Amino acid sequence: MAKGSRTRIRILSAAVETACLNGFNGLNLQPLAERVGLTKSGLYAHFGSKEALQVAALDHAAALFQESVVAPAKAVPAGLPRLAGVFERWLEWPAGAGLPGHCPFFAAVVEFDDQDGPVRDRLLRLFRDFREVLEQLIASAVRHGHLPPGTVPGQTVHELVALRYAHHWGRDFMRDPATLARTRVAFAALIRRGGSAA
Amino acid sequence: MAKGSRTRIRILSAAVETACLNGFNGLNLQPLAERVGLTKSGLYAHFGSKEALQVAALDHAAALFQESVVAPAKAVPAGLPRLAGVFERWLEWPAGAGLPGHCPFFAAVVEFDDQDGPVRDRLLRLFRDFREVLEQLIASAVRHGHLPPGTVPGQTVHELVALRYAHHWGRDFMRDPATLARTRVAFAALIRRGGSAA
Repeated sequence: MAKGSRTRIRILSAAVETACLNGFNGLNLQPLAERVGLTKSGLYAHFGSKEALQVAALDHAAALFQESVVAPAKAVPAGLPRLAGVFERWLEWPAGAGLPGHCPFFAAVVEFDDQDGPVRDRLLRLFRDFREVLEQLIASAVRHGHLPPGTVPGQTVHELVALRYAHHWGRDFMRDPATLARTRVAFAALIRRGGSAA
Repeated sequence: MAKGSRTRIRILSAAVETACLNGFNGLNLQPLAERVGLTKSGLYAHFGSKEALQVAALDHAAALFQESVVAPAKAVPAGLPRLAGVFERWLEWPAGAGLPGHCPFFAAVVEFDDQDGPVRDRLLRLFRDFREVLEQLIASAVRHGHLPPGTVPGQTVHELVALRYAHHWGRDFMRDPATLARTRVAFAALIRRGGSAA
């Protein structure tokens, strides 16, 4: 790998760690440059603006998410086992990818819900991509007879996102030790019901 | 009302509006002082520190939440109607209280999940208070026979929080017009099931 690429990845790794702790708006070029041993203009040579760095950091976080949450599920049988595998690894994200702090994507939702522009656009695309991954896993689980035939994948995704959020709230904010058990009870109930439209 | 109290409330109203848009870490004394027509030292006379202002703004937001989400439900019959009334108004919060932007409490969770101190402590207490309100509404709905007898209120609260989060994600971030229908489908399914422990 060329030195420029290695430096770029070193910057992005530090940027994603920062975003897990302080969000993407907390990605300031000067402290980040110091952290990776570059000057601010050296960092600018890789990313021409804070916004470009934020977008590249989102992509880097998405690659880590793909690697630590989505890809390993391919090793387990298709249908419900694979869906449950992704869900369980999603609960462990970002710690499962060796990152500090909490889910950088959920943090970015709060930061960019009403801030239009390239960062919001990229985050939206990443969530749509993941929604599609989940919908395919759900459709496969229906075909395998693991979920009821009336299941509407978009509904089930909505409720899986709900459970991942509540898991963050219960575990990381409320620090309630009952959280994991509650999340699993709710997941099991959702699987039994499937997420029909009515 | 004494002039000091009126000024205090004027500051807190502006602070909560700011928090709905930029979070509680975005509550900087200088721009807030300018907005309400005070000097920074004039604002300091009311709140000795940014942290004291953040705590007072949380309390003010909680008072608005109580007034616009919890209190009106007392006018509807006890049991499920009252629980559903709180849930529906919670979905409309903070717009239903005339506030801009998005739920300041959810924004604060991201900001203070791993930032120990008085702001996190107060936010935790406010969430515990609201959790208790919801648990009482759920217990009352069980007594009225509107929720299954095996319902575990703590489980149901976990899933109500989940749905409120997903509603924020779907409506405010994804801007998906199907969001309200999906949230209501999931709420209806949760009510049918109740939220038993297994």
